[in-house]
Amino acid sequence: MGKIKSISLIGSGNVATHLGIALFEAGLKVDSVYSRNIDHAKLLGKILNSRFVDKIADISYDSDLYLISVNDNAVKDITKRLSDILGYNILVVHTSGMVSSEIFKADFNNYGVFYPLQTFRKKRKIDIVEVPFLITANSTDIENKLYELASRISNSVNFMSDSKRKALHVAAVFVNNFTNFMYSLSEEIVGKEKIDFDLLKPLIKETAMKVYEGEIPSQIQTGPAIRNDHNTINSHLDYLENNQVAKEIYEVITKSIVEKTK
Amino acid sequence: MGKIKSISLIGSGNVATHLGIALFEAGLKVDSVYSRNIDHAKLLGKILNSRFVDKIADISYDSDLYLISVNDNAVKDITKRLSDILGYNILVVHTSGMVSSEIFKADFNNYGVFYPLQTFRKKRKIDIVEVPFLITANSTDIENKLYELASRISNSVNFMSDSKRKALHVAAVFVNNFTNFMYSLSEEIVGKEKIDFDLLKPLIKETAMKVYEGEIPSQIQTGPAIRNDHNTINSHLDYLENNQVAKEIYEVITKSIVEKTK
Repeated sequence: MGKIKSISLIGSGNVATHLGIALFEAGLKVDSVYSRNIDHAKLLGKILNSRFVDKIADISYDSDLYLISVNDNAVKDITKRLSDILGYNILVVHTSGMVSSEIFKADFNNYGVFYPLQTFRKKRKIDIVEVPFLITANSTDIENKLYELASRISNSVNFMSDSKRKALHVAAVFVNNFTNFMYSLSEEIVGKEKIDFDLLKPLIKETAMKVYEGEIPSQIQTGPAIRNDHNTINSHLDYLENNQVAKEIYEVITKSIVEKTK
Repeated sequence: MGKIKSISLIGSGNVATHLGIALFEAGLKVDSVYSRNIDHAKLLGKILNSRFVDKIADISYDSDLYLISVNDNAVKDITKRLSDILGYNILVVHTSGMVSSEIFKADFNNYGVFYPLQTFRKKRKIDIVEVPFLITANSTDIENKLYELASRISNSVNFMSDSKRKALHVAAVFVNNFTNFMYSLSEEIVGKEKIDFDLLKPLIKETAMKVYEGEIPSQIQTGPAIRNDHNTINSHLDYLENNQVAKEIYEVITKSIVEKTK
């Protein structure tokens, strides 16, 4: 089979927008952009020099690849409607870490997953060439096609099974969602004291960059918990007496750090 | 009173090393470096062109500032021994976020806190000019002297009361120690599956840089918890069934994110 030269996007959210723009800039033709909301489809379609539609039936019939970037819970429904209209021979992928590629099995002959491991916001620039892409497919042929496609926009492309990708997604929740919640709790703590949150930013950056640049997290854990410094821990817990959410998180994480290092 | 021109360092750990080098490079004379461990004192003393000692009684008598960078629990003991030998008129500061400046009250006339809000490791370069310094002192005169000193090495110097600095330190535990533990749990999760931890690094960087560059954490929380996406949450918890520490943390943080956004 030849290279993928044209795509249709199903979805117009953060991931669809970043992938669509990267693929378009890499020279792919974008045949159509579908969104339930025609204004969203139009906004992205204009950028990608593409038709924009709000009915599955209006999606282009002859794209080399149909890229589904919608909420995890909507993938199955979109799949059924796509195969009803376009048949089972089109090449379909989704971009979800959690959803198995097998979700396509009953409806398509050629399918896979094209998962970019990054947090995307429409308005924020991402260095896509650094984003790891994890590829799953139902045949070696499709694997290779998707690998080649991802390699046109990223320097980090790997094959990965559904079950491993799921593990990676769970890990991503810890380093992204939960880490941001740590930032959020600290924002609240300093906010209550009218201390400028900006003071914490160099520490936020250094904590991440240290690991980004090669330190191993489990080997560089610091703080009162790993020192088993009860004076400091108790003093922190006293301080958090009026912030029950932060206090509970402090207690559970401290307990876990102590357990892990026994 | 004039500018601080000479210092003695009490301690030779990560903070003492980074501050000592920065102050030395800014032109300060380092009269003596004290450590219980003479080899540690020697290592740092050589770099700072300074005498190195392992007895408090051997510390220089005429430094403009005595900078105590030791474990929080050791500050009080060092304080007593210093004042016994050098009297109560020397200028003394510690570098701890948690320890009150009042710890010096009974023993010294001139004292304060010189707190750099950053995580330091001896072998890792830090852009000291970006590090926030929080200054506390027992008089305006001393405040100004310490402010002037910090300004020679950093662009971010602020006065802050003992109680606010303590709040800031608690917040720092969340963005540094607890965040690193999130990284550590993810390292363990992917390690069990023999997935390369490096795949998570661009996400670690972007999660931090987004906030570093101005996004507000509480406004950009993403993930299954804030969407109240029970399918994904339950699927993640099932996956973590054999990792009780990660599972408990997942549950508590998820519950808190849901509560915070009700």
